[in-house]
Amino acid sequence: MEGATSNSPAVLVKAPIRVAAICGSLRKGSCNRGLIRAAIEISSKSIDGMIIEYTDISSLPFLNTDLEVDGTYPPEVEAFRDKIRRADGILFASPEYNYSVSGPLKNAIDWGSRPPNVWADKAAALVSAAGGSGGNRQQYHIRQIGVFLDLHFINKPEFFLRRPLAPPQKCDRDGNLIDEEIREKLKEVLLSLYAFTLRLQGKSK
Amino acid sequence: MEGATSNSPAVLVKAPIRVAAICGSLRKGSCNRGLIRAAIEISSKSIDGMIIEYTDISSLPFLNTDLEVDGTYPPEVEAFRDKIRRADGILFASPEYNYSVSGPLKNAIDWGSRPPNVWADKAAALVSAAGGSGGNRQQYHIRQIGVFLDLHFINKPEFFLRRPLAPPQKCDRDGNLIDEEIREKLKEVLLSLYAFTLRLQGKSK
Amino acid sequence: MEGATSNSPAVLVKAPIRVAAICGSLRKGSCNRGLIRAAIEISSKSIDGMIIEYTDISSLPFLNTDLEVDGTYPPEVEAFRDKIRRADGILFASPEYNYSVSGPLKNAIDWGSRPPNVWADKAAALVSAAGGSGGNRQQYHIRQIGVFLDLHFINKPEFFLRRPLAPPQKCDRDGNLIDEEIREKLKEVLLSLYAFTLRLQGKSK
Amino acid sequence: MEGATSNSPAVLVKAPIRVAAICGSLRKGSCNRGLIRAAIEISSKSIDGMIIEYTDISSLPFLNTDLEVDGTYPPEVEAFRDKIRRADGILFASPEYNYSVSGPLKNAIDWGSRPPNVWADKAAALVSAAGGSGGNRQQYHIRQIGVFLDLHFINKPEFFLRRPLAPPQKCDRDGNLIDEEIREKLKEVLLSLYAFTLRLQGKSK
Repeated sequence: MEGATSNSPAVLVKAPIRVAAICGSLRKGSCNRGLIRAAIEISSKSIDGMIIEYTDISSLPFLNTDLEVDGTYPPEVEAFRDKIRRADGILFASPEYNYSVSGPLKNAIDWGSRPPNVWADKAAALVSAAGGSGGNRQQYHIRQIGVFLDLHFINKPEFFLRRPLAPPQKCDRDGNLIDEEIREKLKEVLLSLYAFTLRLQGKSK
Repeated sequence: MEGATSNSPAVLVKAPIRVAAICGSLRKGSCNRGLIRAAIEISSKSIDGMIIEYTDISSLPFLNTDLEVDGTYPPEVEAFRDKIRRADGILFASPEYNYSVSGPLKNAIDWGSRPPNVWADKAAALVSAAGGSGGNRQQYHIRQIGVFLDLHFINKPEFFLRRPLAPPQKCDRDGNLIDEEIREKLKEVLLSLYAFTLRLQGKSK
Repeated sequence: MEGATSNSPAVLVKAPIRVAAICGSLRKGSCNRGLIRAAIEISSKSIDGMIIEYTDISSLPFLNTDLEVDGTYPPEVEAFRDKIRRADGILFASPEYNYSVSGPLKNAIDWGSRPPNVWADKAAALVSAAGGSGGNRQQYHIRQIGVFLDLHFINKPEFFLRRPLAPPQKCDRDGNLIDEEIREKLKEVLLSLYAFTLRLQGKSK
Repeated sequence: MEGATSNSPAVLVKAPIRVAAICGSLRKGSCNRGLIRAAIEISSKSIDGMIIEYTDISSLPFLNTDLEVDGTYPPEVEAFRDKIRRADGILFASPEYNYSVSGPLKNAIDWGSRPPNVWADKAAALVSAAGGSGGNRQQYHIRQIGVFLDLHFINKPEFFLRRPLAPPQKCDRDGNLIDEEIREKLKEVLLSLYAFTLRLQGKSK
């Protein structure tokens, strides 16, 4: 007896698309990292064909091209770049710092763009948990950054988790998403990213 | 022998304004750091009343509020914040990375904004050396960041040093500015920053 | 010999600052025009020294430099430019259309920038009533526009009136502001604009 | 009786993609309109399968939702919206006014976004002829606008025609593009838009 896929074209299993998820905050209890955990859970439970992998950026050095020797990058950078290279899509989950992208996230983005640019031609989506407007200003900055990176962002739905001024909170103290309505909205983002990734790859669901 | 100014309160010498200059690139031979060296030279030679001080950001850790203990910041952060706090104005000299602010610069900006925000109500100017459009995209991102920081940027002149595709270069291999016309434009930026700083402080030249 | 001001320095009356207020919506019942009416009321009642004047833009033609003949502009344009020229400060009250500035407002701005640029070196403030984030995206676009115009925007407080999804509304059907808390915030914007205008003019309150 | 396509798969003619081209300047001798004329020429000569049609915006009224009666728009608006609706892709050719989108272009964009949004899910490209940086600032504003419109912009190549300070000019006095190198770059933009439009539609060339 052989493997399920070998004798019956009907059961051909499509390779799942892989999404690298990056958190712009280094804080342990970050709600944005909680959004990534929720996204991983949602996709593993209910989006066949999409695998989200958390991609840590905390061990990257600051970008400094003096650290590049003979076209090679520091080991942590190479490891990060490999993970992005293997991904079909990118999920950015980031707070807004001073109306723009966080420093650690920008730093990771910049390392990925060093030649050859590992972001090129991938699909991407943005989610953010932040005060005020929920991080929309930094999302538009990342979208502009994406023009040079050659990322293709989904347009809709946009996802802005506005940190409430008063309880009930949307995330607990460890950053875990505890709001069901927002979990549902997050799922819609993931489904849109999934569909757009396939569309860009010339595949149908 | 007397001189009109020597024996009367009229000789009160105005304290010079102090400008903290920050370079967005950590690269040794950065032309943006060269712009700061040129600015220091220009002001010490020909702008009485303005002192520019290079403010290093390379030893700052990545922003992570978990590093804040009982309202105190890591020592390198405290030292950086002190320098900004004492300044009357800020000079940002930064490359453009992927159409936006550099990671190290954003990180320094964000540390300075932690409470109490040390950027508040200062005058500021932007210069950049970069390929393509000379870094204009990142300048507008920093201007938006400045709304939250409560910085007051000069509007004119804007300064974009476009790295030429072919020689002659504007900076040498060590990043030193070697173009006289650009040095003149840089001086105009400094004079504008000087005048605007005084104006915001309610002083005249 | 008498003159009110000649023999009694104590009665020297400072000339009030004049603010031109422009609404980005042409709609009759616009809540943004209502914000201007409220601002006029607030300043006339409780901000001695600031006069706000509504400046209509609805009769301007579309910008087309073919309409400029021998350095003169169409009569409606000249009239508009005169009003801006006489103002010390500008108050923009505008909705957000498609994440940016409204067409009519941008058109008015552009006419004002034709040589000689009548916006130059004035203080300015932005308020907006809009869905979603209350119009913050368009405000940052106008701030970038302001760099070229040489406007000096107040940084704080920012004012975003988020149109609520459900009653109670903040404006009535005619666009009148009917929320006292927001009226108080609007007053803070006006006081900040007033103070910044004086500061830029080298005057104290 | 048979249909042409039923018995001879070899002659299946793919429907060409249609691109609506919009000029942000109303000026007769606009170089941006010249770019559209050049684009039409290039596509008709050498890009089989793409038809570019100039779409006039000069007769649109200013956006004012008071002009909408029972869900219908003024006749010029309806005509414009129909043209956009029928297009597969959009080519924006626009100058930069005061670091942002031109008023007439923004106005046309806004009319198209009124429900139902006729821009939704189309591919798009941006070209601009302007002083300074060649119009890059307004392109990023339009890209942000495109998030709400749900346009999918090509990332590369970007096209910025920098109006030279001294002859030789790139456009003649009537706005005709007279530079062969730039014509070649324009063609690359069109090919990229063509390929991206097909890709989004799930078709191959």
